[in-house]
Amino acid sequence: MDKKPETLHREIVARSRLFRVEALDLRFSNGVEVKYERLTSSTSGAVMIVPLLDNDTVLLIREYAAGTERYELALPKGLAEPGEDLLEAANRELQEEVGYAARKLTPLRQLSIAPGYMQHLTHVILAEDLYPQRLQGDEPEPIEVVPWRLEELPRLLALEYFSEARSIAALYMVRDLLRERGGRR
Amino acid sequence: MDKKPETLHREIVARSRLFRVEALDLRFSNGVEVKYERLTSSTSGAVMIVPLLDNDTVLLIREYAAGTERYELALPKGLAEPGEDLLEAANRELQEEVGYAARKLTPLRQLSIAPGYMQHLTHVILAEDLYPQRLQGDEPEPIEVVPWRLEELPRLLALEYFSEARSIAALYMVRDLLRERGGRR
Repeated sequence: MDKKPETLHREIVARSRLFRVEALDLRFSNGVEVKYERLTSSTSGAVMIVPLLDNDTVLLIREYAAGTERYELALPKGLAEPGEDLLEAANRELQEEVGYAARKLTPLRQLSIAPGYMQHLTHVILAEDLYPQRLQGDEPEPIEVVPWRLEELPRLLALEYFSEARSIAALYMVRDLLRERGGRR
Repeated sequence: MDKKPETLHREIVARSRLFRVEALDLRFSNGVEVKYERLTSSTSGAVMIVPLLDNDTVLLIREYAAGTERYELALPKGLAEPGEDLLEAANRELQEEVGYAARKLTPLRQLSIAPGYMQHLTHVILAEDLYPQRLQGDEPEPIEVVPWRLEELPRLLALEYFSEARSIAALYMVRDLLRERGGRR
């Protein structure tokens, strides 16, 4: 079962300004052939930033989400630009969306969002030792920054508009990490 | 800022067998106009199931993911079929993918995966009081079922191929829920 299926054919079957759909014909090791479609990612990398204002407070942002058609509360994120590495991208997005820069940036792990049909992977970056510094982004309206205490995560999870799986996963991971650090002291 | 932007125009600009891309022209309350694209979801609902074999053990599945092009470990999930409600869909997917049915199904919350550009919402359903029962699914090869103790979540998070944000978020939520239940006893 660990032997990957063989790719018999791949072809771009639809594209728009932002999306590209690839059709895949796969043959599994047992001989079964299946047709798949997936969204490909052509970017140099996606980052999600967990900005730690202090040892218990993260900075969330609230902005309009065109996919779910409502205002959503989530962690800041974005795509690396050509020539930028992931930590540079994280620090730029942090300055554009939150109005802080970080002296310490630590990659935590990669998250997929729909591995069955999306190539997309997001790198979660912990941002610490923050100081106020703003870069102009391309947001259509000012982004609301919402500080939240990690020990009050259950109250955050009760909000319908805090719904993004990556943000929830990342905050839990960072809460565990901070508790471990605290225990080590 | 809570006033939603006005939709000036919406139009399907690309489609394939599985995907449909909608272009949106939006005008924000401050007058700024922006062009967006999003993937629309035409299904009757998506579910992710957290199957609890006992008070500490969840059942994960390992299958090939065409998006990330590797085998991924994750919670079972699927789409509701026409006429099926979400709990029925969860119980059917559980039988197809894991080989168990549940006597107790509890909706926990909805998760979005990319609210900025996907309409998609997944309903997380806790499945308890399980008994062996299999339904034939449409999988190309047998799915490997992997029991995992929730108290060993950190070891699971260390696996690169356990990457899906929804699965990570759901397991943390259920771990917290079980700890709460335990505390109440």
